[in-house]
Amino acid sequence: MEYGLYSREDLKKEYEKVLKEYESLKSKGLKLDMSRGKPCSSQLDLGEELFSNISGKDCIVDNFDIRNYGLLEGIGPCRKLMADVLGVKPSQVFVGGNASLSLMYGVLTVAYVNGLRGCMPWGKLDGFKFLCPAPGYDRHFAMSGDFGAELVTIPMTDEGPDMDAVEEAVKDPAVKGIWCVPKYSNPTGVIYSDAVIERFAALKPAAEDFVIMWDNAYLVHEFRGDYKPFPDIISLQEKMGGTAAIYEFFSTSKITLPGAGVSCVAASEDDLKGISAHWGYQTISYDKINQLRHVKYLKSREHMLEIMKKHAEIIRPKFDIFVKSFEDELEGLGIASWTNPEGGYFMSFDSMPGCAKRIVSLMKEAGIVLTGAGATYPHGIDPEDKNIRIAPTMPPEEDIRLAAGAMCICVKLASLEKLLEK
Amino acid sequence: MEYGLYSREDLKKEYEKVLKEYESLKSKGLKLDMSRGKPCSSQLDLGEELFSNISGKDCIVDNFDIRNYGLLEGIGPCRKLMADVLGVKPSQVFVGGNASLSLMYGVLTVAYVNGLRGCMPWGKLDGFKFLCPAPGYDRHFAMSGDFGAELVTIPMTDEGPDMDAVEEAVKDPAVKGIWCVPKYSNPTGVIYSDAVIERFAALKPAAEDFVIMWDNAYLVHEFRGDYKPFPDIISLQEKMGGTAAIYEFFSTSKITLPGAGVSCVAASEDDLKGISAHWGYQTISYDKINQLRHVKYLKSREHMLEIMKKHAEIIRPKFDIFVKSFEDELEGLGIASWTNPEGGYFMSFDSMPGCAKRIVSLMKEAGIVLTGAGATYPHGIDPEDKNIRIAPTMPPEEDIRLAAGAMCICVKLASLEKLLEK
Repeated sequence: MEYGLYSREDLKKEYEKVLKEYESLKSKGLKLDMSRGKPCSSQLDLGEELFSNISGKDCIVDNFDIRNYGLLEGIGPCRKLMADVLGVKPSQVFVGGNASLSLMYGVLTVAYVNGLRGCMPWGKLDGFKFLCPAPGYDRHFAMSGDFGAELVTIPMTDEGPDMDAVEEAVKDPAVKGIWCVPKYSNPTGVIYSDAVIERFAALKPAAEDFVIMWDNAYLVHEFRGDYKPFPDIISLQEKMGGTAAIYEFFSTSKITLPGAGVSCVAASEDDLKGISAHWGYQTISYDKINQLRHVKYLKSREHMLEIMKKHAEIIRPKFDIFVKSFEDELEGLGIASWTNPEGGYFMSFDSMPGCAKRIVSLMKEAGIVLTGAGATYPHGIDPEDKNIRIAPTMPPEEDIRLAAGAMCICVKLASLEKLLEK
Repeated sequence: MEYGLYSREDLKKEYEKVLKEYESLKSKGLKLDMSRGKPCSSQLDLGEELFSNISGKDCIVDNFDIRNYGLLEGIGPCRKLMADVLGVKPSQVFVGGNASLSLMYGVLTVAYVNGLRGCMPWGKLDGFKFLCPAPGYDRHFAMSGDFGAELVTIPMTDEGPDMDAVEEAVKDPAVKGIWCVPKYSNPTGVIYSDAVIERFAALKPAAEDFVIMWDNAYLVHEFRGDYKPFPDIISLQEKMGGTAAIYEFFSTSKITLPGAGVSCVAASEDDLKGISAHWGYQTISYDKINQLRHVKYLKSREHMLEIMKKHAEIIRPKFDIFVKSFEDELEGLGIASWTNPEGGYFMSFDSMPGCAKRIVSLMKEAGIVLTGAGATYPHGIDPEDKNIRIAPTMPPEEDIRLAAGAMCICVKLASLEKLLEK
């Protein structure tokens, strides 16, 4: 029965019962960090080959000794591999260092300092705005905030950002860009529908230098079922006639080794040149030896997908534990809903309005760190205080079982507190 | 006898002779690139161990699995190693990715976008100026130029930048920084004198957010004689009472592998925090696995210096060839002077005024690419058109011999053309 239909008397009884469960939970003295989307150590072990799969003798690539300076855009075979994965041309790919975040920051820096497509640099404007589909990725929002952008929330739907809201917002020439995680969106796990992607590809913003920051971080990260083909927005834009500057990001951080992987950005050749011309001032070249390690290890798009199957075997059971716990403990109580994605690194959990912060704080008291409530919204403020991001990949299964059980207790407790205070 | 004392008749004869030598040089069809300070392949071979010296099992460092995300400032042992080399505290060191240029760009970006020490961001000012001791490093000057800084030339002396000029210039609050390569300065090879370093350490610029960009790229790069101890400017500043924000840069690009090395920046703890707080928006962490590879390979400051002795054995003969050629062919002609440094990657060559561009172009026609004339000055403009940077490390010795001989011919030819045109 839904809590909402309980008599006040029964609510109180239930509260006493759940409170006892919570006290017993606290007494276990747990210490778990589930705040970030980190791979677990058996996932990291999959990449062991990367520690020794090349030697100096392998380093002549296209007649160039890649141990030396040079090749700003990356080594040819790595550009080709990434192009195959993204469905673009190698000439549209710039391979960077270990973090796609740095490439995103690099695009915003050029836009802010030098200007894109010959437009006025954003830093010279009175102000500018950035669209943030929420719930979304906290690091995205924080990055544009660090450049002083006004962050405009766009509601997320089951098919991606609310495109009516996007199309309306981009009529304002002060709106300079939008953050997108188009496949297995962080944290909801939503895959943008074809209709949404087509509307992005056809978008004609008032600002000539409007950027679509297309962070395809989870493009190959299915953990249930086979790889789901995903349209390439860059060639689609040519067909649909949109005019936004699309920068698509990808990295191997959750395929090989986080922090020692390879990242890339894809864009039309003109938009790529506009960026790399300035990136040449900040580095002579990225780590091409690590690029070669990755080419040897990943081999091809097909082989990359095989490696992802191994990751899936490791992390799927952890998602299953959370889903099953929620179904067993919370379904029918009318106090929560959650996503059950088929890929990516997160589940999104919605509590009753006004309960998310309390749940995260109850969990923390019980020794389990979740991503801060509100983190998935611009400026860390969830207007309804209900969304929580769950990142179940890193702890071992026995800990996940404890955490999932603990979360159900905390959700119940916070909901009962809320219902009793009315 | 000096060319200047020749009769016009004799000058013409000499010109005919040298022109024939040049024609014969051109007929050799050489193809040599001496434009950049790149290590040669036998130097790169020294770092072979880096390709396989660690495995996943070594990756638990200070109880942290460094294969995963985290540790923005770098792994402890690498911060300690770099601190030992620079003579600072580990807490004053931030270890970055493969390029110290990126860290320099990162400092300028924070200054431009967010502001340093609570000051107005440079991007919000009507304009700002940067001091460029010249001849100096083209990439430094170009980087500050890319941020829109007005580049102010400061003359270089045999002891470092002209400190009277520096102290005068920093009275202007619009002057926001200076580029320094304090040991084996690029391209002159000058080591800043203790007096110059002390004046930097005591500098009290009008701008509170004035940065000394102390690029100690060649700190351990002696190729003649033993390592020459060099004062740590960060602790010296505490003693001398200067107020500038000092950021010191270093990398292993020319110790291990260019483009696959490890870079770092050192600063007072406050100035470091002011920067890294914003760097946290652009990356979660740098490549910590590569940092560990470097710790295992370099071991200690002492062992690093032993490795540098091996580099010295390889590159010293190449410098010797140039010095001997110039002495044999040009000494006494009154048309050129050159530096003979004991470390670093460059020699600086001064022709007669108005001849540098012509020499570089004659060399190019003969198939030898030098760094562009003027590159060592802000905006690439050498007011006297006389300075040429020589980068002899990359080509094999037999090619260096050809290039040095060729350069003497081209210098003579350009000088004779100049003298005959009067």
